[in-house]
Amino acid sequence: MRTRAAVALEAGKPLEVMEVELEGPKKGEVLVEIKATGICHTDEFTRSGDDPEGLFPSILGHEGAGVVVEVGEGVTTLKPGDHVIPLYTPECRECASCLSGKTNLCTAIRNTQGQGLMPDGTTRFKMLDGTPIYHYMGCSTFANHTVMPEIALAKVREDAPFDKICYIGCGVTTGIGAVINTAGVEIGATAAVFGLGGIGLNVIQGLRMAGADKIIGVDLNDDKAEMAKKFGMTHFVNPSKVENTVQAIVDITKTDFDQIGGVDYSFDATGNVKVMRDALECSHRGWGVSVIIGVAPAGAEISTRPFQLVTGRVWKGTAFGGAKGRTDVPKMVEWYMDGKIEIDSMITHKLKLEDINEGFELMHAGKSIRAVVEF
Amino acid sequence: MRTRAAVALEAGKPLEVMEVELEGPKKGEVLVEIKATGICHTDEFTRSGDDPEGLFPSILGHEGAGVVVEVGEGVTTLKPGDHVIPLYTPECRECASCLSGKTNLCTAIRNTQGQGLMPDGTTRFKMLDGTPIYHYMGCSTFANHTVMPEIALAKVREDAPFDKICYIGCGVTTGIGAVINTAGVEIGATAAVFGLGGIGLNVIQGLRMAGADKIIGVDLNDDKAEMAKKFGMTHFVNPSKVENTVQAIVDITKTDFDQIGGVDYSFDATGNVKVMRDALECSHRGWGVSVIIGVAPAGAEISTRPFQLVTGRVWKGTAFGGAKGRTDVPKMVEWYMDGKIEIDSMITHKLKLEDINEGFELMHAGKSIRAVVEF
Repeated sequence: MRTRAAVALEAGKPLEVMEVELEGPKKGEVLVEIKATGICHTDEFTRSGDDPEGLFPSILGHEGAGVVVEVGEGVTTLKPGDHVIPLYTPECRECASCLSGKTNLCTAIRNTQGQGLMPDGTTRFKMLDGTPIYHYMGCSTFANHTVMPEIALAKVREDAPFDKICYIGCGVTTGIGAVINTAGVEIGATAAVFGLGGIGLNVIQGLRMAGADKIIGVDLNDDKAEMAKKFGMTHFVNPSKVENTVQAIVDITKTDFDQIGGVDYSFDATGNVKVMRDALECSHRGWGVSVIIGVAPAGAEISTRPFQLVTGRVWKGTAFGGAKGRTDVPKMVEWYMDGKIEIDSMITHKLKLEDINEGFELMHAGKSIRAVVEF
Repeated sequence: MRTRAAVALEAGKPLEVMEVELEGPKKGEVLVEIKATGICHTDEFTRSGDDPEGLFPSILGHEGAGVVVEVGEGVTTLKPGDHVIPLYTPECRECASCLSGKTNLCTAIRNTQGQGLMPDGTTRFKMLDGTPIYHYMGCSTFANHTVMPEIALAKVREDAPFDKICYIGCGVTTGIGAVINTAGVEIGATAAVFGLGGIGLNVIQGLRMAGADKIIGVDLNDDKAEMAKKFGMTHFVNPSKVENTVQAIVDITKTDFDQIGGVDYSFDATGNVKVMRDALECSHRGWGVSVIIGVAPAGAEISTRPFQLVTGRVWKGTAFGGAKGRTDVPKMVEWYMDGKIEIDSMITHKLKLEDINEGFELMHAGKSIRAVVEF
C-alpha cells in the first residue's frame, strides 16, 4: 500500500512529506493507522545528525497513537479496530529481561530495532523508487500508517483522544514513570527537577501524585516557572540567579532537625552532563537518589568524586520511565481519562503533517511544550 | 595519665612511638584501653600525606578493640570492664541521619571528628611538651589508651579475641556490610569483586554468606586467587591477561537464556577510579548494581557515559559497609564467634607497637592481608 510520511532523507535537513510504499504486516506484526504523533527532542537528536547511530533515509517519530488496521500471522492479542500506542520499548514477556521482573528493557528485538529494521531484518517502508527507508525506534510514527511488532503495541481504551494520549507514548510515561517506577518516591519526600520542559513537567506531576512535599524546579528560564507551578512545583531555582545551584537547593530542604539538607530525589531532564552532576550532588547525603532521564550528546560523560556515592548518594537512570509498555501504558491512559494526570495543557500546538517542520522550529524556539501532528 | 602511642608527627614520615599525655574522659566520653589494632590502607592514606585533610601531629588507627577503663559523666550504656570496638562511624540514634533509617552515616559529631577533635572541640592527647595531638577518625587506636565518645563504641561479647575482632572495626564490616547492607545481594545472584585485598576478601565471604552463585574475583596479581578461592571466589579474572576485563566478566555470566550477560552486583575494592568504571560497566544492563568501597586519591573523579545508567545500571557507594556500628558490629562479632565468618587467616602478621612501621611496609609490599598490633 501507499501512505504519506515525513521522511528524514539526510541528517540536518528538514523532513520531506511524501508518498511512500508500505508493505503489509508479516508474521507477528501489525499494521497501524497513526492518528496523532508528538514531536520529541529525541526525534530532533536524530534529525539534526547529532545522533551518531542515526540512519537515513528514515521515518522518525516514536510518540504516537492509532488504530490497528490489519494483523499478521500469529498475532493473538490485537485485532483490527483496536486502539494502540506504539512502544519504542517493547514488552515481549519472554526474554531474560522481561522475566527478571527487574527492568523494562525488553531485549527481544533490540538488535534489529537499533538497526532501523523489523525483527526479520528488513524494512517495510520504501521510497517510490524502491529505496528502503529505515524504521526509527521501532515506531516511525511520522507516517500515516506504520508496521510494528505485536509486542511493541499497547492496547488502550477506545474513548481516549489520540491527540492527547499519543504523548503517553513517550514524554508522559517517561516523566511520571521516572518518579513511580525508577525512583519509587514516597509520600512526604523532597525532590528537585532539572529542566522544566515536557519531561520535567511530567516528573513534577508524578511527584505531586506520589505525595512529595517540596518539589523544587530548576530552569534557566523564569518563564517556565508558572506552568510548572500548575503541575505541582513548590519552589523554583534559576541557576543563573543564584551563586551555587546545589547549595540553593540544599538550603531549601534544610530544617531545624536536619541541618545537612539535600533532596531525597533528584531528576535530570536536560541531557546536560554538568547538570546531571549538580542533580546528584544536591541530593541528600546518606540516601539521596538521583535519576538521569535526559539523553546526553554523543560521547558526553558524567563525572563526580566517588566520595559523593561513598557518602550514600545513588546514581541511576531511566528509559521510558521504567515502564513496561504493554502493562503500564494502558494504566497511564486510564489515569489520564480519570483526571489523575493532566496532559491537555501540555499539548501547546497542533499541526498537520505538511507542517511538521514547524513543530521542530517551535521546539527549538522554546515555544512549545509538545507539538502534535494530527493525521 | 600517660600512655604509649605511635604518633604521626609529619606527613610522609614513619610513625614515632612515644609516651603521650592523655586527659581523662569528659561528659559523654569513655577511656578505653586498646588491646589490638589493625593497620588499614586508610591510615596509610593519611600517614603518607595523600589525604588533603590529614592533620599532624596525630595518632592514627581506627580498627581496634579494647576494654573500657573509665566512663565520663552521663555515660549510661558502658561501664569499666566492658569490651568494645571503636567506631569511626558513630551511631547516636538521635540525629536526622540515624533516625531516617536510611543510612548509617550518623552526623552527631561529624564536624569535630573531621577536625581531629572530640565533640567539645578539644583534643585529649598532648605531647609531653604540651603540644596538642589530633585524634584520627574519632578513634586513634595506635595508642594503648584512647578517649572516645560513648556513641562511637560498640559493646561486644567478652570472650571474643581482641587480636581478631579488631578487624571488625573496619575491614570485615566494610566488606561484608557492602554486600548485605548496601547491595542487598540475594541468593543465586552473580557478582564481581575488583581487588582481592583485605576488603575484597571480606566482600567475597559476604557474597558466599548471601548465597551468590558466581563470585568473580578480579586482580592483577594471580597470587591473590588462591586465598580468594578459600573465601568463596568461583571465577578469577586477571585484567592483564584478558583483552577486555568488562567483556571477560560479561562472558562468564552469559547463559543460554541470558545472552546479554553482566553481573547482578559489582564491588570496587581498589580505590582506582578507572576500575570503578569497569565495575559499573560489567554489571548487568537493566538492573546491575555497582558499589564503590575503595577510597580514591584526592581529586580523582569517576566517569562514564550516562547511557550506562539510563540502561538500568545503578551506581552507589558504601562507608563502613552501611553498618550501624553499635547495632551491627556486635552481630559481626557473634557471627565470627559462631564460625559464620572467617577472620583468623586474614590476620597474616602480628606486631608490637614498636614495630608498627613494619606493618606499613608489609602492606606496601603486598605481603600482608592484615597486620595487627597487639599491646
